[in-house]
Formats: sequence, C-alpha cells, structure tokens
Amino acid sequence: MPKTILDIVKECDNFIHPTEDPIKYTQSLQTYYVFRLPDCPTPLGYIPASIIPQIIWSPEWWCINHTSKTVTLTAPGPAPARTQRLAQTLHDTRAARSLALLSGWRNETFPVYGPRGDVLLEIERAASALFGVVTYGVQLLCYVRCRDGGLALWIARRAAAKQTYAGMLDCTAAGGLAARMRPVEGVVREAAEEASLAAETVRARVRATGCVSYFHVRGADAGGETGLLQPEVEYTYEMELGEGEEPRPGDGEVAEFRLWGIEEVVAALRRGEFKPNSAVVVVDFLVRHGVVTPENERDYVEIVARLHRRLEFPVCTVPMG
Amino acid sequence: MPKTILDIVKECDNFIHPTEDPIKYTQSLQTYYVFRLPDCPTPLGYIPASIIPQIIWSPEWWCINHTSKTVTLTAPGPAPARTQRLAQTLHDTRAARSLALLSGWRNETFPVYGPRGDVLLEIERAASALFGVVTYGVQLLCYVRCRDGGLALWIARRAAAKQTYAGMLDCTAAGGLAARMRPVEGVVREAAEEASLAAETVRARVRATGCVSYFHVRGADAGGETGLLQPEVEYTYEMELGEGEEPRPGDGEVAEFRLWGIEEVVAALRRGEFKPNSAVVVVDFLVRHGVVTPENERDYVEIVARLHRRLEFPVCTVPMG
Repeated sequence: MPKTILDIVKECDNFIHPTEDPIKYTQSLQTYYVFRLPDCPTPLGYIPASIIPQIIWSPEWWCINHTSKTVTLTAPGPAPARTQRLAQTLHDTRAARSLALLSGWRNETFPVYGPRGDVLLEIERAASALFGVVTYGVQLLCYVRCRDGGLALWIARRAAAKQTYAGMLDCTAAGGLAARMRPVEGVVREAAEEASLAAETVRARVRATGCVSYFHVRGADAGGETGLLQPEVEYTYEMELGEGEEPRPGDGEVAEFRLWGIEEVVAALRRGEFKPNSAVVVVDFLVRHGVVTPENERDYVEIVARLHRRLEFPVCTVPMG
Repeated sequence: MPKTILDIVKECDNFIHPTEDPIKYTQSLQTYYVFRLPDCPTPLGYIPASIIPQIIWSPEWWCINHTSKTVTLTAPGPAPARTQRLAQTLHDTRAARSLALLSGWRNETFPVYGPRGDVLLEIERAASALFGVVTYGVQLLCYVRCRDGGLALWIARRAAAKQTYAGMLDCTAAGGLAARMRPVEGVVREAAEEASLAAETVRARVRATGCVSYFHVRGADAGGETGLLQPEVEYTYEMELGEGEEPRPGDGEVAEFRLWGIEEVVAALRRGEFKPNSAVVVVDFLVRHGVVTPENERDYVEIVARLHRRLEFPVCTVPMG
C-alpha cells in the first residue's frame, strides 16, 4: 500500500505538536530535560530523561536540576569558552562509550543560536541530537523542463556504503550547515562536492525558494539511540538545468544520478524510497510547482503547514555582525 | 520607519501561538468560548466571551455552557439542517442590531469542515469571524520577467469605495472561497471578474504554489467588532504574463492595475501599503522567487514558518465525494 503524502510528512515531523493536543504535548515534554544557558530565557533543546545518566556532566560547568528538569551550562561566555566546555563533556562521554550516537563523531560543529541571532555556542555535529538543538541544512533540487511542459528531477541515489539511509533516494545535493557557513555558500559547496556542478554556475543560477522546518524524533534507521530529538531547518534551493547539463557523482556520497519524470518521483516517494528529510523537500517542490494541488490532495493545507513548523527554539539564518 | 518583513507577517498572524508561550496561550483561550458540534471531537472555532451575550441563542438548538465555555449547535444534521439553524440565529441577531459585523451581510456562505473533510455546515460569510471558524480564499499574483532577469508584479489598488482597506494595494486578483467552489475555479473566476483575464488563459497557465495560513485577530481597520478571530487559509497562485498581456479592472473592486518592479513592491510592503493578508501572499512570493533570502533576511525561518501556521481546527481543500 503506497504511503500518502501526509504520511511522508508525518514521518519527518513526528514530534507531537501543541495544537494537536496541548495536554499530551505538555505531558510529553515532561519526559525531557530542557537544555538552557543562564542568561538566555528560551530553551535551546530537549534531552530525553533516559539519556541524562549516560552523559558525564562535570559539576564545574553543568547544573542538572531534576525538579525543574533543566540542564544548564553554567560555564561563562564568550561562545568559544562554552563551546570548549561542551566539547569536553562530549569527549568524556564518548570515551565512556555509553552512547552509540557519539561513535559517529564528525569533528565538525553546528552553531546554536540565541534569540537575538547571536551564536551562543557550537556543538559537535554528531551530538546535536543528544541535546535536541536546532540544526540547519541545505537541499538542492535540479530540474529540467521537458518539451511537453512537464518537469523532471535530477535525483541522487545514496551510496551503498553510507552509514545512514544507504541506497535511498535523495535530492540532487544536500548537506548540513556548519557554523559560520552562509546557506548559499553551503549549497554551492555541496553541489560541487556531491554533484560536480561548477561553483560559478550554481552561484549564478541557483534560486532560494524558502525552507522546510520540522521536529523529528529519531528512529532506528537514523543510527544511534532512538527517541532523540532533531528539530531541523532545511533551506531549499532549486536550479533549472538545460540539455547536456548533468550532475555527476563527485565524492563517495552518491552512487548515481538519474533524471526522473515527475510522476516517477511521486511514485518513488509514495513507496518510501526517499530519505525522510529529502522526501519532504521533494514534497515542498511538488507543491511549489503545482504538481500537488488543492484539488488532487485532500491534506494539502496540513501538508503545507507541517512542512513549515514553527519551532520553540531560537532560529537564525546568518550569525550577527 | 519602514516595517520589517517579520512585522508584516506578525500583523497578519497576530493570535498567540502555543510554542511562543504555552501558558499565556492557554490563558488566552480562556477568554473565548469554543464552537462545537455534538458529534465532532475537534473545536470548530473560538468566540470571544464578550460576544456571547450579544448573540440571540435559541435554546432549542444551542447549548451554551458557561463552565466549560462551549457553544454547541445541538440541531441534528444533515449539514443543510444545521446551516439553516445557524442562519436563523444570525438573522435574529442581525435584526437586534447588536453586532456591527453583521451589517456587512453578504448572502454568501462559507463551508465549515469536519476532521474527515466533510462539510458540517455552512455559515454566512459576514458572520464567520463571529464564530472564529477557518475561512478559505484564493490569491493570484501575475508577474512579468524583465529583460534584465528581474521580476515585476501586476499589483492592484483597491477601489476607494471598498468598505475595508480602501485604496490599499492588493494581489492581482483575490477572493473568498464560497462553499462548494474548488480553489482553482475560484482563482479563475476572480481573475476574470476583478482583472479581466480570460478564464481559458488562466485555467491553462495558472500555477498552484501552495497556501499561506495564519491566525488573525481582527482590528478596527477590518470593520465590525475588534478582537474577533479569523483563522485563514489562502491558496496561492501565480501566472506569468507576457508583453501585451495586462490585467484590467473588471468590476468595481479595483481602481487600477500597475506593473511594479520587485524593489518597488518591497518598499511599498514595508511602508504598509498592502492589505494585510495580501501582504503575506506577496512575502510568500518573494521567498519562493529568491528575492527574500536567508542571507538578506535575518528572520527568514520564522517568517516562512509563520506564513504556514498549523491551525487547531479541521482544514480541508475540497468537499468529500
């Protein structure tokens, strides 16, 4: 039985939403500790209560309150000092081998923003889901206008050797957005590395089309502990390619590229062949290009709203200054 | 001081969101009565408590519970029977002249959907904000690609005689979606009536691009009582026009059309010259076309999320069957 498009969106945005059931939402939050900084009024992430005993918290720079269920990084700023303390904690925890997630260490940091757009600290990429902080990525879909007026998409198949979602379908290029990288530079870099598209071509012709945002609870297929939270923002980009312009695998990430007719894309989506957060970017494209319409999709309004979830954490696009 | 784009979005989506402050949200809901049907588990709308004494509720088919703060239409179905009872209540209330809102009676009904996409009842358009039910509309932006690669938009100026937002700027064509009208037929009709665009041209070339949804608290400029709630879904459409293709005022709704360069549009937006719910459709267009980008707009992610609010009421696009 093929999935509905709403099923696909729900698999990605699968953390309970407060308007769905405010009481259940509040109860659900009780099973998490809130990650905070002393001088920041808003929560920065949620940590499952079951994970708390498995992290090696140094009392010198952490305050764990089991009544208010808060984890506060008390180390004073500036950001690099906090980043260093957090990294120390993660290194200690990794050395204890208590958390499978940390075996995927990347040596790449993601920024955590405050409510005024300032970077409060940076966190090792592999650990971001441990603290449930917002992470940012870029996704590019290259498309071709067919002679009959229809659309075709350049879809990547993930390498069989990838640690996660091996062999599944993906957008043309995508990647996480490391600290201090502007989204457009991120997409230019990923397009060059993963799809061998010339940086100057992408920079000149790529179009920013918005972002999708969702709140994901990690399952077994993501690797590491299940139940970790992953609120995500993916900046979406599209670029029209002409005849003779073709993405080619650049690094080991992609097994192959193939041009898929739009109906083939929809069928593969509904068979669940896309990586979940690439699937929602494809859905967003189908809505934007009038393939999915209010008339052919009963859940249109809910789909569009859930593709753009308002998160309870500070979100920002580019560091201040 | 020009407005920010986030200011513009906030003016439209100005009802407190649960992720913003769950406690304040819950408290805020205490000042409303929930509009319900006996056989429907989800709320259908919110009515300000201050309005309750001004509506003439027949005890034969209404149950007003001041403890649970609910207003239940107990008249049995099918939908036309409920519609008729609600209409009777509105006629009685209108005759009593206790509510300014009802002086704008339209003799046009809007559908109220249940969670399974069924039309539960219809409500006089002018009264929809009284019950705070979701209403639906369509918005069309016609654009031109300039020779330098930039975009220009066909912007309407509302007639000076309009009851609301007279003289303000609007999308190329827009209108409410009456019961039993498919969104695409709505946009074809509005484009013909308001902008003199041939129905067959629009039907062949218009592109559905998604929808914006927001939860609006009516202010003085909307006419009628202030503080009424208006959760809205606007289906967005765009159509590229070539040289020599021009919208012309068709009925008395539009004073004039003019082709605005994209920078002119942004400046007018920021001066507050657009009708609020047309402004957000223009913002959505600017995001979709890469005019507003993550790099030039710090509030990008919040703007995109708030343009697509997940509403707490059932939403549907086309009636079942």
